Amino acid sequence: VPSDTREQMIYTAARLFQRDGYHATSWRSLVEEAGTPWGSIHHHFPGGKDELGVAAIDAGSVGVIALIDHCFKGQPDAGRAVARWFELSGRLLVDSGYAAGCPVATVALETAANRGALHEATRAAFSAWEKRLSFHLRRAGASRASAADVGTSVLILLEGALLLSRTRGSLTPMRVASRHAQAIAADALTASSSSAA
Amino acid sequence: VPSDTREQMIYTAARLFQRDGYHATSWRSLVEEAGTPWGSIHHHFPGGKDELGVAAIDAGSVGVIALIDHCFKGQPDAGRAVARWFELSGRLLVDSGYAAGCPVATVALETAANRGALHEATRAAFSAWEKRLSFHLRRAGASRASAADVGTSVLILLEGALLLSRTRGSLTPMRVASRHAQAIAADALTASSSSAA
Repeated sequence: VPSDTREQMIYTAARLFQRDGYHATSWRSLVEEAGTPWGSIHHHFPGGKDELGVAAIDAGSVGVIALIDHCFKGQPDAGRAVARWFELSGRLLVDSGYAAGCPVATVALETAANRGALHEATRAAFSAWEKRLSFHLRRAGASRASAADVGTSVLILLEGALLLSRTRGSLTPMRVASRHAQAIAADALTASSSSAA
Repeated sequence: VPSDTREQMIYTAARLFQRDGYHATSWRSLVEEAGTPWGSIHHHFPGGKDELGVAAIDAGSVGVIALIDHCFKGQPDAGRAVARWFELSGRLLVDSGYAAGCPVATVALETAANRGALHEATRAAFSAWEKRLSFHLRRAGASRASAADVGTSVLILLEGALLLSRTRGSLTPMRVASRHAQAIAADALTASSSSAA
């Protein structure tokens, strides 16, 4: 049974790592922002900041998968589902004053060179999102090879656009990327249906 | 006249910020890796790590512009020039063991929420790259509106792919993104030439 303290620590870590990165966020600031007692934190995360970091990336990853599922639910048009994902991600940017974006990207770049447990969590997150996108594209009628390729393409566009939109403080890159992502998803389905015909 | 010490510090900072991020790189590790005496560093960067950070982002930005120019030089086919940029960027990933990628992205994400001088340097870098891409696309025959849009699209694809390729330790995302970037550049030029005809 997850305790409130544990959940609160993970939520706070996910928010701060997303906003400022892993290294800028001190253990002390995590404890203070979460408003939890020191003792119980060491009880929940004996591995300290690294262990909490992995839990925060995993939680962020689960959140993105839920968002992808939400966008594809009851939406037979994969292009529209993809557009919805970009739209909701853009809304998160704006609603946070561009402080929130991808819950994984900053930590992924900070840890790519050292290949520890935190890096592995970010690699697993991106991989899970690509697989989830591919799963929905397959269900919408794309071929297996095409679904994998389009899943990667859509995630590349989302991540590149989140980076540029956050940096610029403007949704323009998200809108440009959404247009391409929709076209790529639609093309994959057209190609599959014409080869099936 | 730039001194060797100053250049050496900037080069070292650009490399470490790219590899591990701004916050993971201590002032002490910068001094040690650059192999420069403490006194001269404070002479060259009285503003400390922040001032050095801005200089490192600016230097990285100039390097990317030179790379873009190199790819378009003597290449009338904009799609091939874009493919060359992705290819050389991918080679930098592999040659560095995926430690190097974009010289700006990590710091951009780390500083997006605090809007200081370092954030402004990253914003200016991305903007300069988009403008440089647009300039070359205009010269290759794209309309003004299309050149700006394609410049943004190509940069989104490059940044998204560098992030995923670094995290995965694989060039697959770079190859997928390059294919889309080439197609988007080629489409813009076809559309311009058919509307001119």
